[in-house]
Amino acid sequence: MRLKHVKGAEDRIAVSKVVIHNPKEQKGHFSNLFKNHNPIYIEIGTGKGHFIVENARRNPNINFIGIEKYDSVIVKAIEKAEVENLPNLLFIRMDATEIDEIFSHEVDLIYLNFSDPWPKKRHAHRRLSSPLFLKRYETLFKNDMMIEMKTDNRHLFEYSIMSFNECNFHIDDISLNLHEDDVEENIETEYEQKFSSKGYPIYKIKVTKEI
Amino acid sequence: MRLKHVKGAEDRIAVSKVVIHNPKEQKGHFSNLFKNHNPIYIEIGTGKGHFIVENARRNPNINFIGIEKYDSVIVKAIEKAEVENLPNLLFIRMDATEIDEIFSHEVDLIYLNFSDPWPKKRHAHRRLSSPLFLKRYETLFKNDMMIEMKTDNRHLFEYSIMSFNECNFHIDDISLNLHEDDVEENIETEYEQKFSSKGYPIYKIKVTKEI
Repeated sequence: MRLKHVKGAEDRIAVSKVVIHNPKEQKGHFSNLFKNHNPIYIEIGTGKGHFIVENARRNPNINFIGIEKYDSVIVKAIEKAEVENLPNLLFIRMDATEIDEIFSHEVDLIYLNFSDPWPKKRHAHRRLSSPLFLKRYETLFKNDMMIEMKTDNRHLFEYSIMSFNECNFHIDDISLNLHEDDVEENIETEYEQKFSSKGYPIYKIKVTKEI
Repeated sequence: MRLKHVKGAEDRIAVSKVVIHNPKEQKGHFSNLFKNHNPIYIEIGTGKGHFIVENARRNPNINFIGIEKYDSVIVKAIEKAEVENLPNLLFIRMDATEIDEIFSHEVDLIYLNFSDPWPKKRHAHRRLSSPLFLKRYETLFKNDMMIEMKTDNRHLFEYSIMSFNECNFHIDDISLNLHEDDVEENIETEYEQKFSSKGYPIYKIKVTKEI
């Protein structure tokens, strides 16, 4: 993804009240920030935030944390969230490779929406559904691992099915053309809106694993 | 599938030399029919036989058995095979539900090509990739289970991915658009030619399981 520079993004993130500025210090205690014990759902690669903001609006009894590494992208998500003023939505600006230094046995579900496909084979370990990342996620979860993934990238999806299978995940549900199915409750990402409107299939998988 | 009646099909099958007329009596000894110990690959639902005839032609060191329940369909496969006169290709006219009464620890690979999708949920157990059938196949195999499946039916494919995963198969390879991939060695079925030429994606999966 080629990113536009957004002037002042860093400064706006630095002062935002919807951003967790010291995530490593919250490890194991993210519930405290929400002042309740509701489930915590995180989205890794939250982009401009349409998905997570709408999800948080629809599900006030779930706490959401959007994670994104690019200032110029997350700043848009933050602006949306600030307007909505949702008590169950926070953000972290960070790289996903450090995710297991941030959360400890407190996450209920991970969303991977339209993740970077890293098409070159030698970059496969960087894909957020690689066995390396699936292993890294293990200590994040409070109970069973639950991951929901959507993508328009066929090769990433094929790889992910094999990776989940390889790592002994149970496939609870799968769709090879989400928008052809009856999915009233589906919340589209910005990216998804663009691609599905062109007629490309959107792939979705839900997996779980007992740990 | 609505089938045309083919006049005389039953009689032609009854006298064909490429048909195994007493399959239950061959149980455990199918190699004898081929007079060698080459691997045995079977196709359940062999249809009009284009796939298996071409496969047998390309791979003289593998023995192929095409299985089909409909007289009016298998008769076309038999006619093709008789013309080719291939020593490594035979057919059985039977229903797949009896498959474990026919083979015993002698099959190396099962092909499931464009199987009946049985779209109604209450018929799911009739799908050739259902957990019921996957269990039934276990005693057929000489060594590890190996299954290759192709279909144009999205819902059957989604179901099959979940079924293979549920039954602890390892997914060795998967394609969600076979004809977009570089697959020189792909042998098309009659059905596949028709559907892929209309631009519909063809799905393929290869799975294995140690037993």
